[in-house]
Amino acid sequence: MKIEILNIGDEILIGQVINTNAAWMAEELNRNGFKAYQFTVVSDNREHILQALEDARARADVVLISGGLGPTKDDITKETICEFFDTNLVFNEDAYHDIVAFFDRRGIAVTELNRKQAELPESCISLSNRIGTARGMWFETTRPVGAGSKPAPDSSIYVFLPGVPFEMKDMFTREVIPRLKEKFVPKPIFHKTILTQGMGESFMADLMKDWEENLPPHIKLAYLPQPGIVRLRLTASGSDEEVLRQEVESVISSLQQIIPDLIYGYDTDTLENIVAQLLMLQKKTLAVAESCTGGYISHLVTSVPGSSAWFQGSITAYSNRSKEDLLYIKKETLESHGAVSEQVVLEMAVGIRNRFRSDYVIATTGIAGPSGGTPEKPAGTVWIGIATPERVFAKHFLFGDNRERNIRRTAVTALNLLRQEMINP
Amino acid sequence: MKIEILNIGDEILIGQVINTNAAWMAEELNRNGFKAYQFTVVSDNREHILQALEDARARADVVLISGGLGPTKDDITKETICEFFDTNLVFNEDAYHDIVAFFDRRGIAVTELNRKQAELPESCISLSNRIGTARGMWFETTRPVGAGSKPAPDSSIYVFLPGVPFEMKDMFTREVIPRLKEKFVPKPIFHKTILTQGMGESFMADLMKDWEENLPPHIKLAYLPQPGIVRLRLTASGSDEEVLRQEVESVISSLQQIIPDLIYGYDTDTLENIVAQLLMLQKKTLAVAESCTGGYISHLVTSVPGSSAWFQGSITAYSNRSKEDLLYIKKETLESHGAVSEQVVLEMAVGIRNRFRSDYVIATTGIAGPSGGTPEKPAGTVWIGIATPERVFAKHFLFGDNRERNIRRTAVTALNLLRQEMINP
Repeated sequence: MKIEILNIGDEILIGQVINTNAAWMAEELNRNGFKAYQFTVVSDNREHILQALEDARARADVVLISGGLGPTKDDITKETICEFFDTNLVFNEDAYHDIVAFFDRRGIAVTELNRKQAELPESCISLSNRIGTARGMWFETTRPVGAGSKPAPDSSIYVFLPGVPFEMKDMFTREVIPRLKEKFVPKPIFHKTILTQGMGESFMADLMKDWEENLPPHIKLAYLPQPGIVRLRLTASGSDEEVLRQEVESVISSLQQIIPDLIYGYDTDTLENIVAQLLMLQKKTLAVAESCTGGYISHLVTSVPGSSAWFQGSITAYSNRSKEDLLYIKKETLESHGAVSEQVVLEMAVGIRNRFRSDYVIATTGIAGPSGGTPEKPAGTVWIGIATPERVFAKHFLFGDNRERNIRRTAVTALNLLRQEMINP
Repeated sequence: MKIEILNIGDEILIGQVINTNAAWMAEELNRNGFKAYQFTVVSDNREHILQALEDARARADVVLISGGLGPTKDDITKETICEFFDTNLVFNEDAYHDIVAFFDRRGIAVTELNRKQAELPESCISLSNRIGTARGMWFETTRPVGAGSKPAPDSSIYVFLPGVPFEMKDMFTREVIPRLKEKFVPKPIFHKTILTQGMGESFMADLMKDWEENLPPHIKLAYLPQPGIVRLRLTASGSDEEVLRQEVESVISSLQQIIPDLIYGYDTDTLENIVAQLLMLQKKTLAVAESCTGGYISHLVTSVPGSSAWFQGSITAYSNRSKEDLLYIKKETLESHGAVSEQVVLEMAVGIRNRFRSDYVIATTGIAGPSGGTPEKPAGTVWIGIATPERVFAKHFLFGDNRERNIRRTAVTALNLLRQEMINP
């Protein structure tokens, strides 16, 4: 069964609005054992909508359309729909009753524009809207002879939903998913994403080559890189979800033998959340001394709700004077080694541990770029220091010259160093 | 001229990744006088990619493809591309030279997988990648007879770009837009976005009602809200860009009469960049004391390249003890007024000014939420303090209970308060 998600809206095509509706629908389909085959976005234009509906018929068994409905947009879209399905608008008493009730609850009178929203194509099943006034529409049509390359089945389902996310989501969950499950047997599918930090995509692929080649053909692997992070998504499809889950867990076990140090979590985990959990579990506290990351590590850890339980605070020392004044870095150390050095990052880590009397410390110093580099210390040169109740150590990195990427890579690398140290002191 | 944006990636179709690349490309096209006609997303699958390339030929003159490139994905995509364009992979010395240089800068040896990235289809113009190792590819093909419904021209342009946003964006701006402008005459269009801070969308719309109704029909207005910020985008289309520019400037002048205090900048300005410019111009320095924003303001200002010239540093004091130790907040003040109070934020501002000996200071304290609120001080209660060479003052705000939104709203509100104070002391 092939599902196409079709979004109608000029605001998406000029980049003003990001198409989160499609992503949400796709995720929801997936959770229910279905898979979107294709996404399409077209403009609020009669010919373009007709063409897209026709094109989709050739590719898909089910077309889920959002956008183009709503009091100011209804006219064009509903007329276009009637043209495509060769039907007429008729006044729907139920729909009108809902619209009146909707405005009654708000103490507002129904306008002519809203009354027209109760006119619906005769051949559709209408879908109720608990949040707004635009009803959804479910059509089942027979495919005309010669109308495209789709082999079977001969019928297509078209479902029209409002574009307003809240309305679309509520209608999708209540009205669309249950009907799809009645019509089609969902295909068991199981996803798990392995989160890694510390090695680039191509080097990891080299290490994982044999493992990857030995994956059973029904388990697919995808590399999803982000600055400093590579996510590995495994997708298994078959006939029994529990079997798939076990198979995926088993291939993950063997991967853990190959890249044990790189894996920090799964699915929706983040490094800051994992560090937060470890700190809570071990009843320890954290403080941060930042130079090149400029407060970003502090921002990441404080974005975790409840972080005030274990986060003491941070100092961002951007000037040399503030490094001396606030972190007790010795003037001699700064002068003889420079601010971006192993000696300074170690003194930062110790300095901030004393300042905040915290159990763990992350310290960073580096040249975020794009300027400020020297031949000896080019932009992207970074030192990360970690202080624990047991020891203090520092590591050197050389990233690129993109400021934003360097800040992100340094932050995730530092959080992962802390995580590793907390697990294996 | 019709442009289709085609994204290749299973991660988009399962809803794991939101298709921000398409939105970004569409916006960039628009800024340059082009408009995306359609978006399509297909899976990492040979047949599906071939079908999508073929379908797009019938609709579009230019197809901009992103995704499917990168060391671990190259194989399928590049072979599929060669099949579609009836060409072969050849080893490209220039591309290999760039790849070697890329890894040399990082002190890493080139792998076989990376070496293969230098193999490119013979018939394409290759596009350089300054950030990663996957080159882009530009093809110009003649449309075969009967290959679809597109009336003219007979040739199609296909451009393949990496899916990693940083790499795609850099390549798109440097290599794609200038080539498109050579081939096609952009349609005169003029955009200007007015950036405002300090009032919600619906209240602003009320204030601006008459102005909005008097806009000429060829100038469209869109409200683009973000936490704490509302962007107002004006889009004018016509036949002469200079005329459009003047018309837009003129309607902006009349808007400035209506909401003078809310406007902080235009287009790609950010509050942190504007504050940076003011500090450089006035040769002043800044320091930050953060509680509820947890380092986010510090992160924003240090994301500006060259910020070390005027940013002294920041202290995030999350615990009461660190507020006393590092910011010299009196124990009595904390005990009698609580950490989230006017008195504390004023002492924070003064304390950090003494610590860093800076000209300007931003201080924040509040309950970011979602928990931690009381009936008297619910989540979203925020105090912002500003210290200048002339005075110290504080303002109170009540936001919502969403942690992420509260952090962002507090940060932009604080930066805007500083901006206003620097302009009108």
